[in-house]
Amino acid sequence: MRVDGIPMRTIWPMGHRTVGIIDQTKLPYDLVKVELKSLDDVAHAIRSMLVRGAPLIGATAAYGVAIAISADPSDASLQRSIDVLGRTRPTATNLHWALDRCSREIGKLAPAAREEEAWRFAALICEEDVAINRAIGQHGLELIRPISKPDRPVNILTHCNAGWLATVDFGTALSPIYAAHDSGISVHVWVDETRPRNQGASLTAWELAKHGVPHTVIVDNVGGHLMQHGMVDMCIVGTDRTTANGDVANKIGTYLKALAARDNNVPFYVALPSPSIDWNLADGIAEIPIEQRAAIEVTHHAGKQLTPHGVGIENPAFDVTPAKYVTAIITERGVLRAPYADSLNEQEAIAAAP
Amino acid sequence: MRVDGIPMRTIWPMGHRTVGIIDQTKLPYDLVKVELKSLDDVAHAIRSMLVRGAPLIGATAAYGVAIAISADPSDASLQRSIDVLGRTRPTATNLHWALDRCSREIGKLAPAAREEEAWRFAALICEEDVAINRAIGQHGLELIRPISKPDRPVNILTHCNAGWLATVDFGTALSPIYAAHDSGISVHVWVDETRPRNQGASLTAWELAKHGVPHTVIVDNVGGHLMQHGMVDMCIVGTDRTTANGDVANKIGTYLKALAARDNNVPFYVALPSPSIDWNLADGIAEIPIEQRAAIEVTHHAGKQLTPHGVGIENPAFDVTPAKYVTAIITERGVLRAPYADSLNEQEAIAAAP
Repeated sequence: MRVDGIPMRTIWPMGHRTVGIIDQTKLPYDLVKVELKSLDDVAHAIRSMLVRGAPLIGATAAYGVAIAISADPSDASLQRSIDVLGRTRPTATNLHWALDRCSREIGKLAPAAREEEAWRFAALICEEDVAINRAIGQHGLELIRPISKPDRPVNILTHCNAGWLATVDFGTALSPIYAAHDSGISVHVWVDETRPRNQGASLTAWELAKHGVPHTVIVDNVGGHLMQHGMVDMCIVGTDRTTANGDVANKIGTYLKALAARDNNVPFYVALPSPSIDWNLADGIAEIPIEQRAAIEVTHHAGKQLTPHGVGIENPAFDVTPAKYVTAIITERGVLRAPYADSLNEQEAIAAAP
Repeated sequence: MRVDGIPMRTIWPMGHRTVGIIDQTKLPYDLVKVELKSLDDVAHAIRSMLVRGAPLIGATAAYGVAIAISADPSDASLQRSIDVLGRTRPTATNLHWALDRCSREIGKLAPAAREEEAWRFAALICEEDVAINRAIGQHGLELIRPISKPDRPVNILTHCNAGWLATVDFGTALSPIYAAHDSGISVHVWVDETRPRNQGASLTAWELAKHGVPHTVIVDNVGGHLMQHGMVDMCIVGTDRTTANGDVANKIGTYLKALAARDNNVPFYVALPSPSIDWNLADGIAEIPIEQRAAIEVTHHAGKQLTPHGVGIENPAFDVTPAKYVTAIITERGVLRAPYADSLNEQEAIAAAP
């Protein structure tokens, strides 16, 4: 999307076995670009969330494999890169999906042929992501357009950052919003702050501002109140992993917004690139592993302590919204309704058909 | 309650027409005591939330009237103190309840007799609050005791600070928790951070730590996830204003926890001193005015900016939890069940009977 009018992506190959990224921990104040030159650089970038968001993590991991293969194209090197990158973040399905594909596509080649293919393949994963997100935007646009009115904006609540910063471009949850805005529909976005890492207040607010989409930041406690008062027309969120029955793991707190949406008859949409479906799982709450992150994310912000010294902290990064609270799922292939076990399967079968 | 073993209250007369308070904006790092000597001091202390919590606001306002009457016992002075203090915070019913009582009790006396009565009356309001909160603790204890087990703590989630810091002593929502802890029941408290002012992470965590009650701080997004996983046995929250039908206005975000409690069959209790019932209202969402506070509470913490420069902010301080999501109301008179329009009325009639 655009940053002050200039088109930009979140990750780009730079030649010389190097990949460029935006250090997202420095946003919204500084737009800092970082060069990744080693497997360790890439693992650190994912683990420390310089890059984050399931699709971007997958794309970055694919470039991490390419960087490792450039240094050493052996089977051992390939396997080591898959292992190291696979351990960086536990919840995102895209990460393992991207690494599995890299392992298969690159592993089957002779070592001498691997480098070129690894870079080509990482670029392909990026282009696939861009195409997926653009399509999610177009399908989601058709949920926004019918409720748009000439005299007032469509008010859309989102949680965390599922914007272009979380992907290679366009975003997932924000892609329909960008599509609506760019097609002249008046939209206004309620941006959940998204504690503890504040990706809404920092990243979502930043990218909406840079692209020119009207928005207001709220603390995570506010959304229910707004819905009670008719101030939210729809919610759109992203997802890190979705089970085969449509249970959705997303940033912690998403579930609470889904409950409020249900209680107030507000549609709750999940923008879902099909690679983030985990076909092996059928019960999100019982089966999706939830990453526990460090206490310091809660106790401190930008070096400032927020809590009493030595207090105990529980910091799960994600929660699971049961499928029954999801009004519709927006994938790159179209808009799906419940029961998702059927509609997801059906869509997958159509996509897989020759 | 105790601070490192020493009993303490939140407000105390000091003689010389002066009242002592704790500057709660300095907690949890510094225990700073402040002397209030003028009506302006008191209005500032309430408006800037050096004191906060509906019962403590009421008690502080009563001392504010006493300080004003000490300086000038005329009708005009009395009326001015009521006006000035009445404008400090819009949502708390206790404030207006305390001021109305002061106006009646003091206004009926000759000016020369007013000073002594004003101080006596403020002290009486404080003692009433302490008695109310102690009784809430004892009634609430009987909801905790039956589910306590020898081998694990009772896990109780609370939002914001409805502890002794929000009252003169004991607290409302925390009073049953203190009563349980002091009677030897093992309790563990999930403390919602409570953005944007972080009263949970700062005040509730501080007072529980000082009294020795085990607790863990979580961001506001986490409670639903914990309830999905059986990690919360009950929720207890306070209230700033409750309608005659049992709709509960409390700190923004309370409603979201009530929804999660309902979705997971977790009891959701509201600790309610009967003075915070507003008998004039019958529909909380439509009728309770919600205070909108300054953007800087969201954009900054301790001087540090959290959001992009110039971003729009919506910052409502309270939300309303519909009565249908409240499992029981704990007042100083006992535990009430739905329908609250009947049970609150019945209890009030019994209390008013000669």
